[in-house]
Amino acid sequence: MVRIGMDVGGTGIQMGVVDDQGRILEKGAVVTRTDLPFPEQIAQMAECALDTLRRSGYGLDDLLSVGAGVPGVADQRTGIIPLCTNLGWHNVPFRDELRKHIDKPIFIDNDATVAGLAESIAGVSAGTSSSVFITLGTGVGGGIVINGRVWSGAHGIGSEIGHMTLELDGEPCTCGNRGCLERYCSATAIIRMAKERLEFYPDSLILEDCGGDTSKINARMVFDAAKKGDPLGEKVFRRYVLFLSQAINTITAILDPEMFVLGGGVSKSGAFLLDAVRAEVPKYALFKDAFPLPRIELARLGTDAGIIGAAMLQ
Amino acid sequence: MVRIGMDVGGTGIQMGVVDDQGRILEKGAVVTRTDLPFPEQIAQMAECALDTLRRSGYGLDDLLSVGAGVPGVADQRTGIIPLCTNLGWHNVPFRDELRKHIDKPIFIDNDATVAGLAESIAGVSAGTSSSVFITLGTGVGGGIVINGRVWSGAHGIGSEIGHMTLELDGEPCTCGNRGCLERYCSATAIIRMAKERLEFYPDSLILEDCGGDTSKINARMVFDAAKKGDPLGEKVFRRYVLFLSQAINTITAILDPEMFVLGGGVSKSGAFLLDAVRAEVPKYALFKDAFPLPRIELARLGTDAGIIGAAMLQ
Repeated sequence: MVRIGMDVGGTGIQMGVVDDQGRILEKGAVVTRTDLPFPEQIAQMAECALDTLRRSGYGLDDLLSVGAGVPGVADQRTGIIPLCTNLGWHNVPFRDELRKHIDKPIFIDNDATVAGLAESIAGVSAGTSSSVFITLGTGVGGGIVINGRVWSGAHGIGSEIGHMTLELDGEPCTCGNRGCLERYCSATAIIRMAKERLEFYPDSLILEDCGGDTSKINARMVFDAAKKGDPLGEKVFRRYVLFLSQAINTITAILDPEMFVLGGGVSKSGAFLLDAVRAEVPKYALFKDAFPLPRIELARLGTDAGIIGAAMLQ
Repeated sequence: MVRIGMDVGGTGIQMGVVDDQGRILEKGAVVTRTDLPFPEQIAQMAECALDTLRRSGYGLDDLLSVGAGVPGVADQRTGIIPLCTNLGWHNVPFRDELRKHIDKPIFIDNDATVAGLAESIAGVSAGTSSSVFITLGTGVGGGIVINGRVWSGAHGIGSEIGHMTLELDGEPCTCGNRGCLERYCSATAIIRMAKERLEFYPDSLILEDCGGDTSKINARMVFDAAKKGDPLGEKVFRRYVLFLSQAINTITAILDPEMFVLGGGVSKSGAFLLDAVRAEVPKYALFKDAFPLPRIELARLGTDAGIIGAAMLQ
């Protein structure tokens, strides 16, 4: 038996036929067409999914379920996606619409959540029964697995780790609140923090790297400068690590998961980031020395996590 | 069939024989004797438990399990209590010791956690499948129920909500960290916040209430003053509500439970506190208006919650 996983993104939808070990047997993709009415977008996805299934050598009788990870909020109870800004979706009946084309159990969840699920089945957190996945990308997302199952809250707005408050009256956030983790630990935040301080560091490597055009500064440039000992780069990096470590501490006080998994674009800085976070977290640990520290690892599955995790939703 | 629940406290241990609806059929109590060696303390508890069972009219054949809620950290996997300061316990084998006297399944968890479980079975959060209980007492504790079951983390240090970080470099905490929720939302914090500001409010009702002896100030005095419009009382109360609401917001972003339940001594201020928190939380809600706000209620079971919840552990 196989499952189909869809990784729904703002520019394209990647999908795959996945076996019960979390291995991708066949892949497919379709361009995201936000210009089309919602039912036609779903029809296109369904067509691609059925075509990918055919190419995998399996048929509808072999298909257990279809899962989709979306860059927004998904309410598994109702099958509705209340909010998915990148695709312009607002309260769309995703499950009911897709079921018109594929009459199988259909599951939906947030893209960070499905990536976390994928890691817990076929990635770095495989074998744990609880884990918290943190995507450090343009924004900051989260995926919570408890007792081997995804937990996305009573209304699908759980594991929105990017919106935990780290600073009362802190940086204003797109969610309407202030001081959210996302304002300090996203790639966007790295760029903002570097730009804000650039005038005090006229000799910064970052300024050199972007050729003097500050609009070209990206997160990688800032962390690369930090690696080379650039004072501005180091300052931003240390602040980033401080906030991320505090967030890990607070999540530990609440959930105490077996493992934290760091994924997303910023996590590609690899051991440089991981080592710094592993060194910082113990400073804020609860009852120092009395309890084991949370394990912190880098994600392993890369971009396939979105397909695998979506397929494994149940 | 019945279960025994033990509410283990620093001065006394309350216990009860509880039916499968969470009703207490018979009660017993024994004084906490921290002067005795650990095995003798457990022997006393076991004796009291078996006596209470006998008085309830049930026998060992009717007994499904024994559960204990302790004011510390409990590791259900190992049956060990790593840390329980009030009783001077450090890495004690609670389960193995108790089983020498009562050969039944034995469960242990934190006292706030079992109170939360009790509310979710026989109290205000009955009927919900996810809830977060917050005890606002001398300290701040938490109890998390997910999918109808207690979640206390991979090492038993989950739901330590009192130790989530609310302020980087904030007030130093007994746990070794800084800026923990407990430093702002416990009875201890209310007293500290009032005392710190007292010199600027020489006409405060609080000073009158304590007869000029500031060592007699308690949390109730401060909140009572706030109710009467006393400027210092109001200042402390507003700060308290602000921090508690921010914590509820962060827990919502992570866990999105169906309901928050406020218990503990400070929650006895009742509607005065509840109404203020209910008015404050929406100000920090994620994606304002797009999603339902978390439900917030006062605990209902009072001191029996510790017995009922401990009995219902499984």
